[in-house]
Amino acid sequence: MRGIRVDRRSILAGLLVSAAATPLTGGALAQGNPLPSWNEGLSKKSILDFVSAVTKEGAPDFVPAPERIATFDNDGTLWCEQPMYVQLAFALDRVKALSGKHPEWRRKQPFQAVLDNDLASLAKAGEKGLVELVMATHAGMTTADFEKIAGDWIASARHPKFDKPYTDLVYQPMLELLAYLRSNGFKTFIVSGGGIEFMRPWSERVYGIPPEQVVGSSIKTQFKIDNGVAQLIRLPAIDFVDDGPGKPVGINSHIGRRPIAAFGNSDGDFQMLQWATLSPGKRFGLIVHHTDAAREYAYDRKSPFGKLDKALDAADSNGWIMVSMKDDWKRIFGFQ
Amino acid sequence: MRGIRVDRRSILAGLLVSAAATPLTGGALAQGNPLPSWNEGLSKKSILDFVSAVTKEGAPDFVPAPERIATFDNDGTLWCEQPMYVQLAFALDRVKALSGKHPEWRRKQPFQAVLDNDLASLAKAGEKGLVELVMATHAGMTTADFEKIAGDWIASARHPKFDKPYTDLVYQPMLELLAYLRSNGFKTFIVSGGGIEFMRPWSERVYGIPPEQVVGSSIKTQFKIDNGVAQLIRLPAIDFVDDGPGKPVGINSHIGRRPIAAFGNSDGDFQMLQWATLSPGKRFGLIVHHTDAAREYAYDRKSPFGKLDKALDAADSNGWIMVSMKDDWKRIFGFQ
Repeated sequence: MRGIRVDRRSILAGLLVSAAATPLTGGALAQGNPLPSWNEGLSKKSILDFVSAVTKEGAPDFVPAPERIATFDNDGTLWCEQPMYVQLAFALDRVKALSGKHPEWRRKQPFQAVLDNDLASLAKAGEKGLVELVMATHAGMTTADFEKIAGDWIASARHPKFDKPYTDLVYQPMLELLAYLRSNGFKTFIVSGGGIEFMRPWSERVYGIPPEQVVGSSIKTQFKIDNGVAQLIRLPAIDFVDDGPGKPVGINSHIGRRPIAAFGNSDGDFQMLQWATLSPGKRFGLIVHHTDAAREYAYDRKSPFGKLDKALDAADSNGWIMVSMKDDWKRIFGFQ
Repeated sequence: MRGIRVDRRSILAGLLVSAAATPLTGGALAQGNPLPSWNEGLSKKSILDFVSAVTKEGAPDFVPAPERIATFDNDGTLWCEQPMYVQLAFALDRVKALSGKHPEWRRKQPFQAVLDNDLASLAKAGEKGLVELVMATHAGMTTADFEKIAGDWIASARHPKFDKPYTDLVYQPMLELLAYLRSNGFKTFIVSGGGIEFMRPWSERVYGIPPEQVVGSSIKTQFKIDNGVAQLIRLPAIDFVDDGPGKPVGINSHIGRRPIAAFGNSDGDFQMLQWATLSPGKRFGLIVHHTDAAREYAYDRKSPFGKLDKALDAADSNGWIMVSMKDDWKRIFGFQ
């Protein structure tokens, strides 16, 4: 897939579709070492200090448990987004799987490009082409059928570099962070530019985040009774793009409370980080910086997937913690 | 407000704006008598039997705790919706409160009708007029400001018949039902045609349902940085109508799981009841029928607020439990 050149917004517009917490009110639970895959240093210390500050009853920065909302981007923040967004790999695989029923795709772009692995032509199709791919692969079935299709794919597809299921390519330090926050009364949410229905079939199993705590981009659905069974049909029309300035909107719509902590890795998370941190009270913002070409990938300002540019420049003045995956993380994935 | 004649859909389109659970996996918690305000009878027995069936591990109808999703309509199901939707009373009060800054409203419908208490003219303004009222009273401020306005109003306004705060006019038997379901591992959600932001400021305090478990109608919002503070501005544009066939759509968007139990009182809940019950597996649907003119109100097929007609006819064939407030409930409100 090297050589593909489309910007992040185009891809997300195209991909448009697609926790159980035990709240405690006491002081921060240390549990020995709650973040064993994090190296000692400023990043780890900042997390521990923040959690300690907001969970100490009577202290100036105490936040009651129901208001301890933490939001996490998914692609590049909780799991690997290279060499392409996982959901794009899913869409391309679906085009191939469905091509037998669509002989016309052999002579129609952008489908022909997908079937020929012609990445240059695919890139040329731009946002319009990606939306076409998504509508052809993510709409036209019931929500239940899509859940099964997405769930089956994620259970069988493998990452091209690591030769592992994509759900093995979640960041072990972030899993520890999610669990640590929940053990301190936080409610953890995914807020992703990816498709809400693409993540929900496995978010609870992989992250401990139940479907109702997943926010994402969506296509429209329509209610229908079919042979006495109530169904929702997925329509080929964009409903909501949960990216950039859409993230605070999606957070407000789904959560109804401003997060006190937000975690991202790209410019698509810029406004979510602002929404969480540019407000009175103790706040926490963190950016996962992909600096480890050996154990994962190294990229930021020029990456078509997970471009980090504007938010990188703004991190310092906003007090956002920059996590260097290479330096701050003892290991990246659980299997390492 | 008697004499106003507008249909439910118009009102909801106009009003467009605007839980902490401890999951257990064992058998149903009896807790002595968990529903003390319910008379013995078919309604109460059906609830107890359903909860027992889905919580008994190893039994054929067992449902794992994370899938025990229960959705509740608000107006007329959890609290009183007569002589008008509470949110409509709020909108009318806001027009009066804001009229000093809008001298033009004295000569402009539908505002003039509100200021003159001219209900006939107000009714004539129809859906378009109601949308105008809502946009003038629910938009043009930040989400934080609206939360304060709605919260302040709900803390001070009083019901015209009972002379109590509206939040005292929640149904005691339904509060017990919410708590009973949560104590049996259910996650309880509000799914209302009313404005999502109108309910969230008090839903946790009154119902034990946190903001992130409230689904409702909404207007659009826009992200903005204002003097270094991140804000969401409420725009005068409809985003989503969570009523009728919109309820399954809203449920899918916010919850991502099909409820196994749904509770409503009007035709606006018809498709939510179908969505929850017309699907394989053990399911439960319940309609609160307003039959008690002495202790509350008696209405159904012809009421402009909470019209129950189509869903009344369909209850029997769908196995939905019809609760008669007069016969099934020992008391209606906690203060009685």
